[in-house]
Amino acid sequence: MPVLEKLSSNRVSTGWLTKYKFPSTSLGGLDTQFNIFVPFSSGSSVPVLFYLAGLTCNEDTGAQKGGFLNAAGKEGIAVVFPDTSPRGAGVEGEDDDWQLGTGAGFYINATAEKWKKHYNMYDLMVKELPAVLKEADLGLDFSRWSLFGHSMGGHGALSIYLKNPGLFKSASAFAPICNPAVVPWGIGAFSNYLDYKTRSNPPAEWLQHDSSHLLQNYAADDLHILVDVGTGDDFLKKGQLEPGSLERAGKEGVQVRMQDDYDHSYYFISTFAPEHIAFHAKFLKA
Amino acid sequence: MPVLEKLSSNRVSTGWLTKYKFPSTSLGGLDTQFNIFVPFSSGSSVPVLFYLAGLTCNEDTGAQKGGFLNAAGKEGIAVVFPDTSPRGAGVEGEDDDWQLGTGAGFYINATAEKWKKHYNMYDLMVKELPAVLKEADLGLDFSRWSLFGHSMGGHGALSIYLKNPGLFKSASAFAPICNPAVVPWGIGAFSNYLDYKTRSNPPAEWLQHDSSHLLQNYAADDLHILVDVGTGDDFLKKGQLEPGSLERAGKEGVQVRMQDDYDHSYYFISTFAPEHIAFHAKFLKA
Repeated sequence: MPVLEKLSSNRVSTGWLTKYKFPSTSLGGLDTQFNIFVPFSSGSSVPVLFYLAGLTCNEDTGAQKGGFLNAAGKEGIAVVFPDTSPRGAGVEGEDDDWQLGTGAGFYINATAEKWKKHYNMYDLMVKELPAVLKEADLGLDFSRWSLFGHSMGGHGALSIYLKNPGLFKSASAFAPICNPAVVPWGIGAFSNYLDYKTRSNPPAEWLQHDSSHLLQNYAADDLHILVDVGTGDDFLKKGQLEPGSLERAGKEGVQVRMQDDYDHSYYFISTFAPEHIAFHAKFLKA
Repeated sequence: MPVLEKLSSNRVSTGWLTKYKFPSTSLGGLDTQFNIFVPFSSGSSVPVLFYLAGLTCNEDTGAQKGGFLNAAGKEGIAVVFPDTSPRGAGVEGEDDDWQLGTGAGFYINATAEKWKKHYNMYDLMVKELPAVLKEADLGLDFSRWSLFGHSMGGHGALSIYLKNPGLFKSASAFAPICNPAVVPWGIGAFSNYLDYKTRSNPPAEWLQHDSSHLLQNYAADDLHILVDVGTGDDFLKKGQLEPGSLERAGKEGVQVRMQDDYDHSYYFISTFAPEHIAFHAKFLKA
């Protein structure tokens, strides 16, 4: 198990935010960094909430601009802020387009030859990072674990939650890419990262990572999902988000709220941050 | 009166954050930018809180990282985020040192020949920006006006408040430079920006801008000041802040709180942001 190297530490809210790095097997041995907020706790371990950030962001963005930590501190919930992609993989073209490669890992495991050595953000989120955190003995209780995220990270939070029934208590998202198999952002990512053979449109390999498709086929009845999308979001208008595709699945336990005039920015996120923390607290502390 | 040009607008909390620019007379005709959060209000005008940011920051820093807007929105208080200096004045050396020139206006009017055409952040804060905002008819009530700030901006908020008895309802600061006439940051700024003749140490011209000195000589008894400083702040340890100099003035209505382990970052600010908003609300809405 790799050793965590502490890079910085800031007292915040009712605890500490610490930045670590470690060499990640999922990312082909590259170092990856993350921030973790751990509230003080009287001896007992605390529930864990992962925040998956969007395109171009990194492990600092949500910690600095999200407005999550006062609410998380009050609720006694740890928040983990991973990076959004490998850094320095050296894949040709990975720094040419903000929607692909660096800063754009899309929380899936790449299967295409070019990307598959390093671009395995799904494994990092679901397997390696939790294992590293457990090993580090930071007082986290992974039997109470939830996810949230923004945009690409909203897709990440929802799809990871839906792929793993029973593993997480809840998922929420701000302006998520709800139907990536059919929207430009998702098509751009999946057509590059995934080695797909089917001639269906969209390919079956893409639908495995599509939250709307996963939701339609979700068999259990324990869904706890909250989604907020601003009606003033330019990416909503451009058809990148498609929150209606979640509603059309018609599942109980999925709440999609359209918020008048809010856009795609962290101003929108920070406005509803306390409500998302309260939503997760309901299930993490039940 | 110059016309405000709208640069961007984001729905946030219970209102809108809008970024404007205008050509500033105080800054020798240079354009200056600011953000303003205005909460929705049922017809009546709202009180105003100016947030003065620290060294290297600009009009976006406090808006993005401060964590002020949810609390301000709930209280129905407008928050104005000005820039920290002129931009592009072309003064020799203004971009060579992060503690002087660009990003380091220190909220005073320069009197030294080299700087005095452009570096008049005091006039911008106290006279021109309020006049421009009143003219723009944004629904602000400047009879209920308060100030807060961080580090250099904490010095700005406290010194401007103390220089103008009766003009403001309250002032607060995170990790302010409390005694700039005798600490390296203040000496660096004042020895450059100010044309001083006295041979006293510190020069009398510097003491006019020193909050501890101003506080000692404050004649009225209507002080409403809150200061938070983290004990883990490296700049406190380096003797840049000197909060004890405020306490030594021994004035009623001045609360200086040392906060265990917090540092100089926006993680510290965002932790206590709601308490500062509540402090100002008490006086702005009395």
